[in-house]
Amino acid sequence: MREFNVAIAGVTGAVGKTFLSILEERKFPVKNLLPLASKRSAGKKIVFNGEEFEVKELKKDSFKNIDIALFSAGASVSKEFALYAAQSGAVVIDNSSAFRLEEDVPLIVPEVNSDKVFPHKGIIANPNCSTIIMCVAIKPIYDISRIKRIVASTYQAVSGAGAKGIVELEEQVRKIICKKSGDIKCEVFPVQIAFNVIPHIDVFEANGYTREEMKMVYETQKIFDDPDIKVTATTVRVPVFTSHSEALNIETESKIPIHVVRDALSKAKGLVLKDDIENRLYPTALDSSGKDEVFVGRVREDISCENGINIWVVGDQLRKGAALNAIQIAEVLVEKNLI
Amino acid sequence: MREFNVAIAGVTGAVGKTFLSILEERKFPVKNLLPLASKRSAGKKIVFNGEEFEVKELKKDSFKNIDIALFSAGASVSKEFALYAAQSGAVVIDNSSAFRLEEDVPLIVPEVNSDKVFPHKGIIANPNCSTIIMCVAIKPIYDISRIKRIVASTYQAVSGAGAKGIVELEEQVRKIICKKSGDIKCEVFPVQIAFNVIPHIDVFEANGYTREEMKMVYETQKIFDDPDIKVTATTVRVPVFTSHSEALNIETESKIPIHVVRDALSKAKGLVLKDDIENRLYPTALDSSGKDEVFVGRVREDISCENGINIWVVGDQLRKGAALNAIQIAEVLVEKNLI
Repeated sequence: MREFNVAIAGVTGAVGKTFLSILEERKFPVKNLLPLASKRSAGKKIVFNGEEFEVKELKKDSFKNIDIALFSAGASVSKEFALYAAQSGAVVIDNSSAFRLEEDVPLIVPEVNSDKVFPHKGIIANPNCSTIIMCVAIKPIYDISRIKRIVASTYQAVSGAGAKGIVELEEQVRKIICKKSGDIKCEVFPVQIAFNVIPHIDVFEANGYTREEMKMVYETQKIFDDPDIKVTATTVRVPVFTSHSEALNIETESKIPIHVVRDALSKAKGLVLKDDIENRLYPTALDSSGKDEVFVGRVREDISCENGINIWVVGDQLRKGAALNAIQIAEVLVEKNLI
Repeated sequence: MREFNVAIAGVTGAVGKTFLSILEERKFPVKNLLPLASKRSAGKKIVFNGEEFEVKELKKDSFKNIDIALFSAGASVSKEFALYAAQSGAVVIDNSSAFRLEEDVPLIVPEVNSDKVFPHKGIIANPNCSTIIMCVAIKPIYDISRIKRIVASTYQAVSGAGAKGIVELEEQVRKIICKKSGDIKCEVFPVQIAFNVIPHIDVFEANGYTREEMKMVYETQKIFDDPDIKVTATTVRVPVFTSHSEALNIETESKIPIHVVRDALSKAKGLVLKDDIENRLYPTALDSSGKDEVFVGRVREDISCENGINIWVVGDQLRKGAALNAIQIAEVLVEKNLI
């Protein structure tokens, strides 16, 4: 069986650590692991498949003999190093936003468009977390009738901002609940996130939307290869550690009876229908965390518009929203003999 | 100056206590205060305008000589006692859902329809918290161009479920963060609310929506006297103590330029525009709590539809969402010499 040399850039971060655990869980055929991070993290030890590894500093020449380079160290790091990795012959699967909308860079959610994984120029992009989760859920609906429009409101976990997001929420909560002295520090989030919700993720764009909101628009259009899907989003940070939740209002071209929607969702790849209101069953962040699937519930007709559907979608944004999706892209490449 | 005998049914609850503080703050002309609650709470002491009062048990004959009866003790208590209060000659301002949709019961948000406060048959209904907050914000938009449709996603605070909601969130957080022993108890909310979001508020209806979601539909239509406003809502509980937040997507009949929207919002009664993305200014639950106004920000064009607007609205749901709105109704009655 073929095995591959896998580098992980940003291995000490929240997504980096999730890359490690998912590669292990899925028994990805790793021949050699090369854990890379910033100078600050170089020298740290990580464990993979029971073996200890020393984290190396990420450099332009780090990628000799690397087959697959998983990047999750932020867009500026990807912009600085990914091309060198690709030039060394690795296939880069990049979790950052650096290359997602570039023309010759595939933007892949395997359940939706794994056929688009090739051709590529050495870099394949992993979409934004909220976008991946949404796309997995809307794909079975799109397959029945093209989606015209989506109104999305998100409820995004703090680990979406990295491990430091978790620390900030925890410290703030501890100060407030355990009545510890000292000011509430807001370094990761623009204002206090403990016991608050913040309608602001990533920077603001000129049109009044945040970059996070525009990612849900542009990336969805690219993933579905449909520039006419209209999307408007409000992305909101909530005091949850892991898993993003989304209230999606979807308008399709033709009316789809709700039982047909439910049936399609129940059979869709990577998706679990959790929808039984009589038994108060619906997905929540807590019970989605640590799982691979995206969960969908609260499936109902939109009573305000002709061909509308409302759904509630939840996914572990470190796993399916990031690391798992990237590794699944690698698995597609392996399956299709593209590496 | 005229003064009034005011009874408060449910005076020991979260809204009841807010009634007291708001009556004090606004120097409502209270001649005599009659604090009422269940048998279990009778005998407790409350302080109002520096004077101590003993809470009396709410009974059918409690309302002799009462001019205004503020009710916030739940729909079943209102159904049992409000008519007796009205028959005794009091004007009942009821914060519960018991009578809101009844034909001869005005459903009032003073900034929207104070002219509808009379005629009444002794009972005036205070709308649902999320609905009030939404209506204050959309009113100035509706005045420019009729609203055809609203897609609403809410982020509702735990005190919306009463003081016990606050206690449950706090105890759960303490167990988790301070690592205290013992199970996580879920008595108020259907599942753990700490570090979670729950797409379920109130009971489920046959159409798959929750009663909370349908309140936002029916009550908005009644308040605007416009049965053709289409509303679809997803109401979600978040781990926030006080103040509801709402992502509202609004479609108007005619296009309104966004600067005109912003201008109207900035001048609207009871509403504060907090919208300056360059300075990262937008409303949040934390900074709205304890304030009387509804706050609106993130005002932008809906890039997915012709005549669409997105806004983010936040209000203290114990104050404007409940107690303050009810007292403002009483103030309208006083102003118009209707009591």
